[in-house]
Amino acid sequence: MYPALSFIGGDLRSIQMAELFASRGASVCAYGLDLPLSEEYNVSRALSLREAVAFGETLLLPLPVCAEKGRVNAPLCKNVIPADDLLALIRPEQLVIGGKFPADMLETLEERGVRCVDFARREDFAVANAVPTAEGALALAMEALPVTLHGARVLITGFGRIGRILAADLRALGAHVTAAARSSRDLAWAEAEGVRAVRLPSEALMQAAADSALVINTVPFAVLDAALLAALPHDAVVIDLASRPGGVDFAAAEKMNIKTIWALSLPGKVAPVTAARIMATTVERILSEEGGA
Amino acid sequence: MYPALSFIGGDLRSIQMAELFASRGASVCAYGLDLPLSEEYNVSRALSLREAVAFGETLLLPLPVCAEKGRVNAPLCKNVIPADDLLALIRPEQLVIGGKFPADMLETLEERGVRCVDFARREDFAVANAVPTAEGALALAMEALPVTLHGARVLITGFGRIGRILAADLRALGAHVTAAARSSRDLAWAEAEGVRAVRLPSEALMQAAADSALVINTVPFAVLDAALLAALPHDAVVIDLASRPGGVDFAAAEKMNIKTIWALSLPGKVAPVTAARIMATTVERILSEEGGA
Amino acid sequence: MYPALSFIGGDLRSIQMAELFASRGASVCAYGLDLPLSEEYNVSRALSLREAVAFGETLLLPLPVCAEKGRVNAPLCKNVIPADDLLALIRPEQLVIGGKFPADMLETLEERGVRCVDFARREDFAVANAVPTAEGALALAMEALPVTLHGARVLITGFGRIGRILAADLRALGAHVTAAARSSRDLAWAEAEGVRAVRLPSEALMQAAADSALVINTVPFAVLDAALLAALPHDAVVIDLASRPGGVDFAAAEKMNIKTIWALSLPGKVAPVTAARIMATTVERILSEEGGA
Amino acid sequence: MYPALSFIGGDLRSIQMAELFASRGASVCAYGLDLPLSEEYNVSRALSLREAVAFGETLLLPLPVCAEKGRVNAPLCKNVIPADDLLALIRPEQLVIGGKFPADMLETLEERGVRCVDFARREDFAVANAVPTAEGALALAMEALPVTLHGARVLITGFGRIGRILAADLRALGAHVTAAARSSRDLAWAEAEGVRAVRLPSEALMQAAADSALVINTVPFAVLDAALLAALPHDAVVIDLASRPGGVDFAAAEKMNIKTIWALSLPGKVAPVTAARIMATTVERILSEEGGA
Repeated sequence: MYPALSFIGGDLRSIQMAELFASRGASVCAYGLDLPLSEEYNVSRALSLREAVAFGETLLLPLPVCAEKGRVNAPLCKNVIPADDLLALIRPEQLVIGGKFPADMLETLEERGVRCVDFARREDFAVANAVPTAEGALALAMEALPVTLHGARVLITGFGRIGRILAADLRALGAHVTAAARSSRDLAWAEAEGVRAVRLPSEALMQAAADSALVINTVPFAVLDAALLAALPHDAVVIDLASRPGGVDFAAAEKMNIKTIWALSLPGKVAPVTAARIMATTVERILSEEGGA
Repeated sequence: MYPALSFIGGDLRSIQMAELFASRGASVCAYGLDLPLSEEYNVSRALSLREAVAFGETLLLPLPVCAEKGRVNAPLCKNVIPADDLLALIRPEQLVIGGKFPADMLETLEERGVRCVDFARREDFAVANAVPTAEGALALAMEALPVTLHGARVLITGFGRIGRILAADLRALGAHVTAAARSSRDLAWAEAEGVRAVRLPSEALMQAAADSALVINTVPFAVLDAALLAALPHDAVVIDLASRPGGVDFAAAEKMNIKTIWALSLPGKVAPVTAARIMATTVERILSEEGGA
Repeated sequence: MYPALSFIGGDLRSIQMAELFASRGASVCAYGLDLPLSEEYNVSRALSLREAVAFGETLLLPLPVCAEKGRVNAPLCKNVIPADDLLALIRPEQLVIGGKFPADMLETLEERGVRCVDFARREDFAVANAVPTAEGALALAMEALPVTLHGARVLITGFGRIGRILAADLRALGAHVTAAARSSRDLAWAEAEGVRAVRLPSEALMQAAADSALVINTVPFAVLDAALLAALPHDAVVIDLASRPGGVDFAAAEKMNIKTIWALSLPGKVAPVTAARIMATTVERILSEEGGA
Repeated sequence: MYPALSFIGGDLRSIQMAELFASRGASVCAYGLDLPLSEEYNVSRALSLREAVAFGETLLLPLPVCAEKGRVNAPLCKNVIPADDLLALIRPEQLVIGGKFPADMLETLEERGVRCVDFARREDFAVANAVPTAEGALALAMEALPVTLHGARVLITGFGRIGRILAADLRALGAHVTAAARSSRDLAWAEAEGVRAVRLPSEALMQAAADSALVINTVPFAVLDAALLAALPHDAVVIDLASRPGGVDFAAAEKMNIKTIWALSLPGKVAPVTAARIMATTVERILSEEGGA
C-alpha cells in the first residue's frame, strides 16, 4: 500500500517514476511535468501547485531539488515554480523526498517539523548509480581510444564505489588494471579483486602512469596534477568522473596536449531509464522505512 | 630475421604495420601510403610500383586486396594502382600476403607459382578480430539503449567466435544473456559458459525474444525474420554484425519501427591500432610458418 | 513423447537417468541396477535380460558399455551380463545408445542393421563434461596448494575444451594464467580470453614454467617431459587431466620430488549428479535427432 | 629500513614471516619457534625470552596472542611462555604487534606507555583474509556437493567482505547466486555486482532458500534458524563461516538431517603460505605507518 504521491517538478526520470508507482497501484498526481504522460497509467495532472501539494501524503521533488537558486528544478514546466511558494504549502505531517535539498530549504522544513529525506545522500542510491556511471565511462573510453580495452593498460585513481565497479568491468573485458588509493583498506580491496594496487601518491603510481593508455579518475581532489600528467604517454586518454572541482589539472593537460574528458552526471545521460528505476527503488525503500507517508 | 617487406596500398593499418616491422629491424618500403610515415623508423618510400615490388622478398597487400574491381585498394594514394600492373611485376620466388584476394588474382598468381597467403582466411585472425568486433558492438549497444547493459536481457543469435566473446563480455557486465544456436555443440558451449541456450529456431527462442531489450545477430543468414522481429518488445534494439546479406529482415524491421544497426568491419573503425596489431601478429605468424620469404 | 526405454547395466548415473526420464513421462524399465530405485517414479524392474531388451524401443547402455571384455558394465548387478547374450536379443528396429562401445560390438550391431549412437563421441557431451572436469581440477588444486589460486601463477598446457574453461575459471578466481598451445588458432583463443599465450614448445614456455606454482595438463601426449619438469619451481604442483598415457613423465617427476596428481574421469567422481544430468541431456538430444526410437 | 624484529611464539606462519623479513634485510630473531628455520636466511634464535625481548625494537606476537589464558600462543615451543614473564620484560619504547590481544594484556601495556597494534582489528587484514576464506569455502562446497557449482543455486547470507568476494567467485564459476542482507546498502551492492538480492529476513528469502542446493552463511548471528532450515531442500548443504556462536541452529539442522559444515579460521588451514604473506603485508604496513619501531 503506497501513500498518495505528488510529483512536483523534475525531468523524464520523474515522469517514469510517476508512471511506475501508478502502475503499481499508487494514487499519483504530477505538477510541472508538462510532457504527455502515457494514458495507460493513472497519473492525474494537478492544475496548480496548491492542488498538487494538497493531494500527496508524500511529495516527490526532483534531483537536484533546485537547479537555480529559489526555483524548483522543473525543466519540463512552462511556469517557474518558486521554492518559497512550495515551502509555504507543505504541511508538517507530509513526508518530502528529494535529491540534494538546498541547505536553507531543508532547515526551514525541519524547523516546521516536516520529515525530509534526501535520497542523494543514501549509500544504496550512490552504489546503484555507480553501475551506470561505470558503464558510461566504458562507453566513453571505447569511443576515445584507438585500441580495445581488451589488452589495454588502465589506471584507476580512487577505489571507492565507482572505482571498484569500473575495475571489475575493465578486468572482465580483458584490460590490465592498476588501482591507486590512499587507504590500506582500499589497497587491500583492490588486491582482493585481482587488481594491481599502488599507493596514492607513490613512485609506483608514477611508473604505472607511464604505462597507461587510459586513466580514469574517481576522486574529487587534485590527483592528476601536472607531475602525474607529465608521466603519461603522449597519447593517453584521461577521463575524470569526479564532481566539481574534479581531480585533473585541466589547464596543464591542455598545455601538454593530453586528451581529457570530464564526464559528470553520467547515469541520467547514458541510461535515463535505468537512472529512473534506481530513483524509484530508492524511493520505495524510503517509503518502506518511513512506514508509508 | 625478417625478409625485406614491401607494403603496397592499404590504409592507416598498413602504415602502422610498416612502422611496427621497421621498428623490429625489418627492411621495409612502402608504395601508395601517402600519409607521412613517422621519422623515427626506417620505412623507405618507393617512388614507383616497380621499385616497390622489386624491393621486397615479401609483398604485403591490403585488406581487402581490391576494394574496386581491377584496382589495388589504396585509399591514401593519389594514383590508381591497377591490379594488372602489380601482377605483371610479381616474381615467382616472392611471397604475397594480403586479405581477401579476388579469386582471379589468386588464380593468376598460383598459376605462375607465386605463394599467396590470405590472412583473412586464417582462424587465428578471425578469432583475434572477434575481440574488437565484440567491443565495438558493446559500445554501439551502450549508445543505443536507454538502460544499462547491467541487468538488461540480451539475446545473441549464433554462438561462434563473436557470439562467444560477446556473451562473456555481456555476462561480465551483468547482462542476462540468452544465446540461440543451431548445433548441439554450440548449445553445449553456451551452457558451459554460463549462458542460457535455446535452439535456433524454436518456440523457446520466440519466448526469449519477447523478453529482450537487445538482440545481437552474428550469423549471415536470415535469422531475424519478420516473425522473430514481431516477437520483440516494441523498443528493442537490434544490432546485426553479420556480413552481407546480414541476418536481419531490415525492411520488416523498418515497417515495425524497430531500431536496427548494421555494423560491419568494426575492428578497423572502433580500434584501428588494435586492428593493425592483429594484422601484424598474423603476418608475423605467416612469415614464421613460411620460413621467412 | 519418449520411446519406451530400457536401461541395462550402469552405475548411479544410470539410476538417476532412469528416474529422470520416468519423471518426464517415459515408460522406463531397468535391468542390472540393483540399488533401490525411488518409489515416486515409475521405473519398472525387468526380471531378466530378455524381458528388459523386449521392453524397450530404445536401449540405454552404460559408459563405458563394457568395463571388462565380454561383459556389460554393471557394477550394481549381482549377476554377470554377458555382452553376447545382450547382442543376441537386440532387434534391428531398436536404437541402442551407450558410451564407448567396444569396436567389435559396434560392428556386429551395425552389420545386423541396428542403429547405434555412442554419446561419448559427441562434441556436445565432451563440452558439457569439461565443466565438471575443470571444477574437479580446481578442487584438487585448492587442496594441494599451500597458497590460494587467487594471485597464483598457473600454467595450462593445451587450450581445447577443458583448457579454455579451466582458464576462464582460474582467471575469474584471480590467478595469473598462461596457456601453452601448439596451434595459432588456440593461441589466438587464449589471447582473446585474456590469457597469456605461449607456443608449445618454446623458450617462452620454459620461462613460464619456471614461474608457475601450478601446472595443469590437458593434452594426451608427452608435454611435461623431464626438461619441462626440471624448469618448474621445486614446490610446484602438477595435475594431469589427460587420459592414458597422460602427458606427464611421472617417473622423472618422482625422481625430482615434484608433486603430481593424475586425475581421470573427474565428472563421475566429483559431481555424479551433474554427470548424470549431462548424460540425460545428451540422450535427450539423440532421441530428438533420431526421431524417437 | 626495518627495525630489529623479535618473533615470540607463533606457528608456521610466524616462521614464514620471520624468514620473509630476514630475506628483505631486517635483523630478526625468534624465540619459541622450534622448527628448523631455513639456513639461507639470517634468523637468529634467541636462547631465552629475555634475550628475545631485549633484541627487538619491535616485537611480533602470534595470532591469537594467547590461545590459553596466561600463556603466549606457542604451539611449536617445548616450553610454556607465561604472558606475565613477557609483559615484565617489555620496555616502553618498544612497538608490540600481535593479533587479538587479551584485553587485560593490552591494558597493562598501554598503561605502561607501550605502543600496541592489533593487526586482527585492521580492515585491510580482514579484507585480504576474505580471499582465502572464500576459496576455502568453495573447496568445501565442491567436496560436499554431488553437483557442480556451475549451474547450482547458491544462497549467501550476509554481504560483507566475505559474502561479496564469495559471490563474485561463485558467479564467475557459473552458479546462480542470491544474497541476503539486512541493510539497503548491502542489497544495493549485491545488485551492483550482478547478484540477486533479498532482504534478511523476508518472504523472498524463504523462497530463495527453498530453491538452494547450497547455503553459505557469513554473519555471526542466528540467521539460519529452524524456520529457514526447514525451507531448504532435504539434500541442501549448509556451510557456516561465521565465528562463534555461528549463524546456524546446528541442533535443528541435525534433527532435520541437513548436512552442515562449520568452517572456522580457513585461511591458516587451506592456504597457510598465503595467510602468512597477508600477515607480513599487514605488519609491513603497520611498520611503515608507525615510522619504524
